[in-house]
Amino acid sequence: MNVGGEAYRTIWLAEDRRTVEIIDQTRLPHEFVTLALRDVNDAVQAIRSMQVRGAPLIGVTAAYGVCLALTADGSDGALEVACDALFGSRPTAVNLSWALQTMRKALAEVPPSDRVTVAYETAAKIADEDVASCRAIGEHGAELFADLIRNKEREGGTEPLNILTHCNAGWLATVDYGTALAPVYTAHDAGLAVHVWVDETRPRNQGAALTAWELGQHGVPHTVIADNAGGHLMQHGRVDVCVTGSDRTTGTGDVCNKIGTYLKALAAHDNGLPFYVALPHSTIDWSISDGIADIPIEERDEREVTHVSGLGEDGAVITVRVTPRGSPAANAAFDVTPARLVTGLITERGVAPASAEGLAGLYPERAE
Amino acid sequence: MNVGGEAYRTIWLAEDRRTVEIIDQTRLPHEFVTLALRDVNDAVQAIRSMQVRGAPLIGVTAAYGVCLALTADGSDGALEVACDALFGSRPTAVNLSWALQTMRKALAEVPPSDRVTVAYETAAKIADEDVASCRAIGEHGAELFADLIRNKEREGGTEPLNILTHCNAGWLATVDYGTALAPVYTAHDAGLAVHVWVDETRPRNQGAALTAWELGQHGVPHTVIADNAGGHLMQHGRVDVCVTGSDRTTGTGDVCNKIGTYLKALAAHDNGLPFYVALPHSTIDWSISDGIADIPIEERDEREVTHVSGLGEDGAVITVRVTPRGSPAANAAFDVTPARLVTGLITERGVAPASAEGLAGLYPERAE
Repeated sequence: MNVGGEAYRTIWLAEDRRTVEIIDQTRLPHEFVTLALRDVNDAVQAIRSMQVRGAPLIGVTAAYGVCLALTADGSDGALEVACDALFGSRPTAVNLSWALQTMRKALAEVPPSDRVTVAYETAAKIADEDVASCRAIGEHGAELFADLIRNKEREGGTEPLNILTHCNAGWLATVDYGTALAPVYTAHDAGLAVHVWVDETRPRNQGAALTAWELGQHGVPHTVIADNAGGHLMQHGRVDVCVTGSDRTTGTGDVCNKIGTYLKALAAHDNGLPFYVALPHSTIDWSISDGIADIPIEERDEREVTHVSGLGEDGAVITVRVTPRGSPAANAAFDVTPARLVTGLITERGVAPASAEGLAGLYPERAE
Repeated sequence: MNVGGEAYRTIWLAEDRRTVEIIDQTRLPHEFVTLALRDVNDAVQAIRSMQVRGAPLIGVTAAYGVCLALTADGSDGALEVACDALFGSRPTAVNLSWALQTMRKALAEVPPSDRVTVAYETAAKIADEDVASCRAIGEHGAELFADLIRNKEREGGTEPLNILTHCNAGWLATVDYGTALAPVYTAHDAGLAVHVWVDETRPRNQGAALTAWELGQHGVPHTVIADNAGGHLMQHGRVDVCVTGSDRTTGTGDVCNKIGTYLKALAAHDNGLPFYVALPHSTIDWSISDGIADIPIEERDEREVTHVSGLGEDGAVITVRVTPRGSPAANAAFDVTPARLVTGLITERGVAPASAEGLAGLYPERAE
């Protein structure tokens, strides 16, 4: 997608075709800064510190992290150490382990001398597949939006389609295009009138910082709201549909996503509104069926709750404390929305009910 | 309650028995500053800028605002102008109009020369009644907590009673003691083991700033969480009960409270947890029965969403922008929780179901 009129992906190779470059997402929306990852530790650090974030982009970054490790040392031992370090950099997103497994499988039979070439080819393939997935999600989701707009017009509605989203599942969370926002971009680019309610998504403000920024860069009408506001807007008919991404989805359709997603799904359900989750197949964890019991939820530093970063009046990014000294904070990063609250899953293969049957319909090769 | 070991109310008279003094709540939790209100405009400004906030305290401040107006000019005209200005200072809390009506009624038959004396007597009576109400709410609520603790112990639980609250309905929201937090203080002072999950309550952070501060001052164990986190904690058995205050409650038990309350009530309902609302009778609006349709919701400045204030590293309070320039924001201050999601209302007269029948049982003199 475009930044200041120039086309970017969120991760790409430098001219040396070895160094990996990323957008430092911790600096957005106030500064647009790119960073070079020169070794596997840089990749681990970029994932851990959330310079890159979003389940699909984490997976691709981990894949390139393997490439960087093998550039330094192509041995089996180095591959193991790199995969372990990358696997431990974030605990929740299943794409991370999926990407690492894909890399291991591609490299297993390859002699150390050829591994660098094969690794970069495989990482590039994972990245390109992610882009293709996101484009397909955008097309399937935009068809849903078009239907909702037709219904709305039939009932005499004149407002744009009001879409609520939580956190950032836009192009910044993927390699390009996004998951939850892909249908928004596709619909907007096709001339449909859409407007996005952007949950700010405390404590890290990915909505206010990233989603608002990328929608603004692309010219999509949007309004930032506190995470508390969505239920009220739904009660008053000001939301037509919710769409979020997912960090891990069980084979039965339970959706793990940014903390607070569950609360919006409850509100959508209480107000009879559709709640969709957009995700590529790499986000599905076929091995588990009870999201609340089985998905480990990352507990992050309490400082993300006690402090907020933003742009000071002098143009510098400043961090301020918002809680009293001596008050502890807790910071679970994700929650799980039970499948019963999800209207449908939008994947690269189409839209299905959030259930084992629904997913089996889209991915018959996985159905047992 | 105590601040640094010294007992305070949130509003009191200076030694001249005319000037009204308050705690400037916009400076908490980082600075403890008191302010003198010398005329009605100071009172209007204190309410509008949320130097005083919380439905009961707004009502008492408005009552003293009438006193200040009459000190300058005891005429019928001055009384009218003052009441109009005070009535317009915040739109949602019904205590404001209730307190102004009480003042008007008390002053209606009083000759202008005696009005100042009667006004201060009436305002003091409103304040003292609020304190008595809050103490009674504390006792009724603490009995509920004691029951919940007994149940928990019977089931082998060893953790303290985990209470989730939203916004600030503590002593800072009232004259003393609080509404939602009164049962917490009563239980804690009686030696019951309680722990409070404090929603930070964006966009103004009254939970992180005020609730955490006053619980800390009183020594009550608590943990600050993002507004997004409560549903996840409930899913994992880490919340036993929710208690919030109310800015306006319909005669049928619909509860208007700080934006986001509805989302927590939905989560409590989905997890089979009790959700109580604590309120004095002055918060009940007997004239309406449909909270969502009939309660006007204040829309506040979008700057509260786009900017956050906190303590910088140099010890000064700084405001930073958290959204990209050019992204608009919306800022509804309250939402309405339908009575069907409320387990019970805790008032100064006891605990009742959130329904017309429940309220009629507590207030038979209001039942038609």
